[in-house]
Amino acid sequence: MKRNLLLTPGPTQIPPDICAALGRPIIHHRTPQFQENLKEANEGLKYFFQTKSDVLILTSSGTGAMEAAVSNLISAGDKVIAIDGGKFGERWVELCQTFGAKTHVIKVEWGKAVSASQIKEVLDKEKDIKAVFVTASETSTAVTTDIKAVADVVRKTNAVLVVDAISALGIIDMQMDAWGVDVVVSAGHKGFMLPPGVAFLAANDKAFKLINECKTPRYYFDLKVAKDAAAKTDTPYTPAIGIVIALVESLRSMKSIGREKLFAQYARLAQGTKEAAYALGLSIFTDKSCQSNVLTAINLPAGIDGEKLVKTMRDTYGISVAGGQDKIKGKIIRIGHMGCIDEFDILTCLSCFEKVLNEMGYKFNLGAGVAAAQKFFNQ
Amino acid sequence: MKRNLLLTPGPTQIPPDICAALGRPIIHHRTPQFQENLKEANEGLKYFFQTKSDVLILTSSGTGAMEAAVSNLISAGDKVIAIDGGKFGERWVELCQTFGAKTHVIKVEWGKAVSASQIKEVLDKEKDIKAVFVTASETSTAVTTDIKAVADVVRKTNAVLVVDAISALGIIDMQMDAWGVDVVVSAGHKGFMLPPGVAFLAANDKAFKLINECKTPRYYFDLKVAKDAAAKTDTPYTPAIGIVIALVESLRSMKSIGREKLFAQYARLAQGTKEAAYALGLSIFTDKSCQSNVLTAINLPAGIDGEKLVKTMRDTYGISVAGGQDKIKGKIIRIGHMGCIDEFDILTCLSCFEKVLNEMGYKFNLGAGVAAAQKFFNQ
Repeated sequence: MKRNLLLTPGPTQIPPDICAALGRPIIHHRTPQFQENLKEANEGLKYFFQTKSDVLILTSSGTGAMEAAVSNLISAGDKVIAIDGGKFGERWVELCQTFGAKTHVIKVEWGKAVSASQIKEVLDKEKDIKAVFVTASETSTAVTTDIKAVADVVRKTNAVLVVDAISALGIIDMQMDAWGVDVVVSAGHKGFMLPPGVAFLAANDKAFKLINECKTPRYYFDLKVAKDAAAKTDTPYTPAIGIVIALVESLRSMKSIGREKLFAQYARLAQGTKEAAYALGLSIFTDKSCQSNVLTAINLPAGIDGEKLVKTMRDTYGISVAGGQDKIKGKIIRIGHMGCIDEFDILTCLSCFEKVLNEMGYKFNLGAGVAAAQKFFNQ
Repeated sequence: MKRNLLLTPGPTQIPPDICAALGRPIIHHRTPQFQENLKEANEGLKYFFQTKSDVLILTSSGTGAMEAAVSNLISAGDKVIAIDGGKFGERWVELCQTFGAKTHVIKVEWGKAVSASQIKEVLDKEKDIKAVFVTASETSTAVTTDIKAVADVVRKTNAVLVVDAISALGIIDMQMDAWGVDVVVSAGHKGFMLPPGVAFLAANDKAFKLINECKTPRYYFDLKVAKDAAAKTDTPYTPAIGIVIALVESLRSMKSIGREKLFAQYARLAQGTKEAAYALGLSIFTDKSCQSNVLTAINLPAGIDGEKLVKTMRDTYGISVAGGQDKIKGKIIRIGHMGCIDEFDILTCLSCFEKVLNEMGYKFNLGAGVAAAQKFFNQ
């Protein structure tokens, strides 16, 4: 009888019609029937990537698409810039180093975003940077980077800009072509409301010039092969058929709402969550200049064990949120605003958060958080 | 109103209870709740791999697990042997060459299997072979290789034996530990009746010695990282949660039947299919010495366009089988015996095969194939 409400920063809740699609009997992938799905999925993804380039569908988690970007662009010894302001920025750094790049790491304080001028400074100094790796929405810190500003800087150079938009796509604006982003990676289990198993990658001509020259050995994630297959509405290897079919469903319903309405809805959920935090006497972990609409990271009161709080919310009350990682482990909670959730889900989550804070001995005006969020939602 | 019967060599049909599991709401993966699933999945997989080693669960198609084997074992310049007797043997060769191995290719005529003595000959001549890559069940040619005999040869050397058992596991016997196979790769969408999206890899200590020394850059498929995570009942990156949960269901029902009974059942389905082919005046593509129980490849009569036949069976009657690839395109059909199918499915498929052969003008005793299979099934 326990609730199962998922407000984690991925995977996100799966709406009933997508669950139903996942539960359907399977079809074979080398058929015109599956090709129709691939074609529609590609069109829908282009709409959210805001690109004319093909969006390649990979069978992997988001990290697989990140590896694809690095291993297809970077040959050993190439110079790159990687921004490290959280767990997923760290992953860019690790990937670049694994594949032998001379990696100029721009370390960013957790909770803050890199600025375009920080990147420009390095690009001005180092003339032969091949690629810049950035995270659009860093879920470990709830930071959003101003990708438009970063792209304005990078596109004036020979470097390609590679953006991890895994938790950004479909939730916040990400104009690949208009802003001049060269490679965008994403995945199905955040904004697209699918179970994990598919990742997406789009690369423009500037990027494919590098990809075609790249000497790093790769096979499963070879983007030239994937692009050739996509041109024939196919995939090089067996795709995650069931998830791709469900993707078609999710893209249909997301497109029927429209990009801008979705972005506005998530911004609203994020703002309501913040209002609740303030009303509870709590502050937001993320710097005001770069707070994300993808999720909200709330600083917990001193003396409250965040690990225990998250565990109680999940195991006693069936409401899943995330705690902090590494240096902020136990010190924050992160409430996701992605995918299939509405203001009532946020209110439910906040009331559970208040309940457990209260049980754990935090002194506050019980109900203040929910009331503040409600007030905001009904403005 | 059209039937959707899948007798292709993967993906295979998904039983209703597994469909239902796939359609359930998702849970988060970094929870004790998901860990219970991972733990049970690992135990069940060990039973079918017949190994004490951990079976690592990767989020990818089978090719991803094949790449993991190559990129974790082989450093550029290493000498390897790869057996190429069909499309999947070719894939081993391509992978080995991509990752810079000096690849001794043993070319095997399509429809025949490599013999242990052919491999021994090369191992005797070349003293520093690092690994031997073999395909247990080559679905392009319906060939089964005698892995036990191959292992008897390879385990006396320093080379590790790597077996692609993607379409073999759960269908034919594959005794990893008892036979001395060092690495076995498989995937979810063949014998395990899952939608594509997960692959499996088990490696013993002999293999991990090589893996630990290997210099090839890898990240997403880094088996050391995957092994460390598995030791904590975890995965390095977001797993295909929904498919792993469905895997638990499929392993439960498969274990409740038992390995040997499953192997016997598939052998029976294969034999019944062959009896039908003979009764229709047709021959089996695969050499008698190495015919697979995983699928049956039937030579089509001269003048019958196999591409058209497969298309008609699927698009007009809703029954999916596979045609031939490359040099035997249009010349054979391949009927799968994997996963959730029984003798009545085989009879349905055979009656459809007869129907379309008849429509296409092949002269034969209509009903003879079904009758022969029926007779065999009722012996």
